[in-house]
Amino acid sequence: MSNSPMTISELVASYHDGHLGEVDAALNALAVQDIADALSQIEAADDRLAVFERLPQERQTDTFSYLGERQQLELINALPSPLARRILHELLPDDRTAFLESLSPEDLENHLKLLAPEDLTQSLKLLGYPEESIGRLMTPRYVSVQSDWTVARALDHIRHEANRGETVNFIFVTDQQGRLLDAIRLKDFILARQDRAVETLMDGEYYSVLASADREEAVQVIQRYDLSTLAVTDRHGILIGIVTVDDIMDVAEEETTEDFQKLGAAGVLNVSLKDAGAGLLYRKRVGWLLVLVVMNLIGGAAIALFEQTIETTLLLVFFLPLVIGTGGNAGAQAATLMVRALATGDVQLKDWFKLWGKELSVAALLGISLALVVAGVGLYRGGPDIALIIGASMVAVVIFGSMMGMVMPFILTRFNLDPATASVPLITSIADIGGILIYLSTASLLLNTGWPAG
Amino acid sequence: MSNSPMTISELVASYHDGHLGEVDAALNALAVQDIADALSQIEAADDRLAVFERLPQERQTDTFSYLGERQQLELINALPSPLARRILHELLPDDRTAFLESLSPEDLENHLKLLAPEDLTQSLKLLGYPEESIGRLMTPRYVSVQSDWTVARALDHIRHEANRGETVNFIFVTDQQGRLLDAIRLKDFILARQDRAVETLMDGEYYSVLASADREEAVQVIQRYDLSTLAVTDRHGILIGIVTVDDIMDVAEEETTEDFQKLGAAGVLNVSLKDAGAGLLYRKRVGWLLVLVVMNLIGGAAIALFEQTIETTLLLVFFLPLVIGTGGNAGAQAATLMVRALATGDVQLKDWFKLWGKELSVAALLGISLALVVAGVGLYRGGPDIALIIGASMVAVVIFGSMMGMVMPFILTRFNLDPATASVPLITSIADIGGILIYLSTASLLLNTGWPAG
Repeated sequence: MSNSPMTISELVASYHDGHLGEVDAALNALAVQDIADALSQIEAADDRLAVFERLPQERQTDTFSYLGERQQLELINALPSPLARRILHELLPDDRTAFLESLSPEDLENHLKLLAPEDLTQSLKLLGYPEESIGRLMTPRYVSVQSDWTVARALDHIRHEANRGETVNFIFVTDQQGRLLDAIRLKDFILARQDRAVETLMDGEYYSVLASADREEAVQVIQRYDLSTLAVTDRHGILIGIVTVDDIMDVAEEETTEDFQKLGAAGVLNVSLKDAGAGLLYRKRVGWLLVLVVMNLIGGAAIALFEQTIETTLLLVFFLPLVIGTGGNAGAQAATLMVRALATGDVQLKDWFKLWGKELSVAALLGISLALVVAGVGLYRGGPDIALIIGASMVAVVIFGSMMGMVMPFILTRFNLDPATASVPLITSIADIGGILIYLSTASLLLNTGWPAG
Repeated sequence: MSNSPMTISELVASYHDGHLGEVDAALNALAVQDIADALSQIEAADDRLAVFERLPQERQTDTFSYLGERQQLELINALPSPLARRILHELLPDDRTAFLESLSPEDLENHLKLLAPEDLTQSLKLLGYPEESIGRLMTPRYVSVQSDWTVARALDHIRHEANRGETVNFIFVTDQQGRLLDAIRLKDFILARQDRAVETLMDGEYYSVLASADREEAVQVIQRYDLSTLAVTDRHGILIGIVTVDDIMDVAEEETTEDFQKLGAAGVLNVSLKDAGAGLLYRKRVGWLLVLVVMNLIGGAAIALFEQTIETTLLLVFFLPLVIGTGGNAGAQAATLMVRALATGDVQLKDWFKLWGKELSVAALLGISLALVVAGVGLYRGGPDIALIIGASMVAVVIFGSMMGMVMPFILTRFNLDPATASVPLITSIADIGGILIYLSTASLLLNTGWPAG
């Protein structure tokens, strides 16, 4: 790893013990990402402010950009106004957008006042793009050259701009109107003869996305084509910014977290779990729980239909958790596999029929295997009738649950909805209702206790 | 996006319609990643081979490297031996390792024979690192310079090596023994005065990982410190390779897929869902289902304890799906949130107590809200006694389920196990047993039907 002489927790400990010399040494030795981590582990806001102010001036802004949203706001409010202004000015445009978009409308208004006029114009422009769009992610700090320049002139320009650009691994080529023509690796400029025209280096192999497009698109293009930098244009093809792979990795992680939260029916938090208050967690979770309560009540009503059967053979109730649980579990497996495969692009809408056939055979095999096990238990506890009822129901509920888990994500995708909405708890609840109906109707039929009382 | 005149599906369609001129045009215009995608959409292996052979020679190896494991093996076996040899020779070392490690022992032996002697030595070395280690991911094609060289000499060397190196955004500095001293951006060499020593550009800020370490570590370092390239050393600090951010993004995606599959108790597939056969899916899924069947049988046994209570008040059975389902759902929410937050590092082991307190208050709030809703239903269906039993049980099971879902991932992490092993189906099954016991003992107590028959 890095050669840090002091770990993050040691820094925090040194501060609490009042060993300020050690704190300063650590602040000098650690990477800004580690300092941000250390700061967020300090409990009291005052202490955090005090350590932040000890940082050498040239590292404050970088450290700030790695802090969580809540701590950024807290610091900016607590810092002396000139320091807050300086940090907001020095932030990279995309980091500034990220900070500003996390603010409430009132906070936003107050903080926009702290910006220098040119920063304000730029920030308002970037914030003008829709939420979760590529425009919110991009930085206008790229290096571009014109196709009719010589390589020597381009290299001079690159040298001049290198410290301003967020990255110069790729140099973008435009025409005189600023329209994007190509993206060329820095190394190609170094390898080329100095008197050639930039045009002669162009191969027309480049990728670009629209600033107004969903950020998910930038993730896909960067991931698919193994890019480190991706050009962003307006709808006229004018180059207006770039997005870099490090930001894209963060976005990909956020999007995956959303998928997890949807799959668990926990609601999308959009903030760190550590920062989420109990009120927010309650609001995000209660909605789905209520929907599922309704489904579970339907499951209960399904049992009530078979009151007569249950009264005659109370033993049936003892296998209820088994039969309904297993259908839900098989459904959970199928839904998880499908939701993830659809999210990574491993599986597409057009594959559904092939996968449906495969799932059907897997589910049948699983159902039969489990039926053999539980029929034995049924035989021991209730005799051959019960064994047959449980075994047959087992096969049917595993197939039903698996099919639900497999098909629902596809149906949601087909209607342009998020497949992860077919959450495990939802699939489980649907499988429960199906399982109850399958199990108890099989029982009524085989035990001749009469069809549902009506 | 890219300026591809033809989409992937059009390519496939043109091939099937016999329009080979259009196929060639598409193969020239599409990126290699898109060609690989098109190839994998062709049903028949013969057709795939025929399209692959139409590819211009200089694009065959790149296209090959983006194919899935199964299709790579199929192609290599079907291609004429000289072509297969050339492709294996031209593959980047990390791509070659990825292909070779996917082979069965017999296939591996056959394919190693196709390698040129120097490639064989290199591949055997890379395959010598443990599975899922950084050594399996790295490529030895980096560009390094020595600290005592001048910038001019270093740039000459970089120019000479640029086409061999997989990336030259970072230039690595070593001493004469090959020990890693620093990593410097290419742009710093361009900006620097030509007669200065490389040493004067060094700032000691670099990151490296051991080749024998788990690949998860490379993901964390690259993601945390926003790197595009990471140096890999042996345990003596000798630079032996690099890993690049594009490979790391693929690994991160794979690891996340594993987490999803574990969370859904579906077993870790390690291959594309599309490529997974029914037999493999069956074997991966049946194990957990059997474990869960045992847990569900325990749930059934818990019901049997309360036979007397149920016989007296059969109505209780109708609410069974509600009470046990809701506990499982709340547990699924809590488990999903925790497993993901632990995976991203948002939450760490030491945070458990704070999160425990928060989860307890959220669960209590959720339980009370749901209790108010279902008590109404209970009152209507069974009177005040039933309303009280259901309401009180609801609060208790939501708290029980949520606590299980929250605590289990922490306990697993504490014992160095994967928190995602606390899968949603497992938490649901545990919550079911708890819910049954809570609900029916509350009922026995309040209905005075006597304590479990024993």
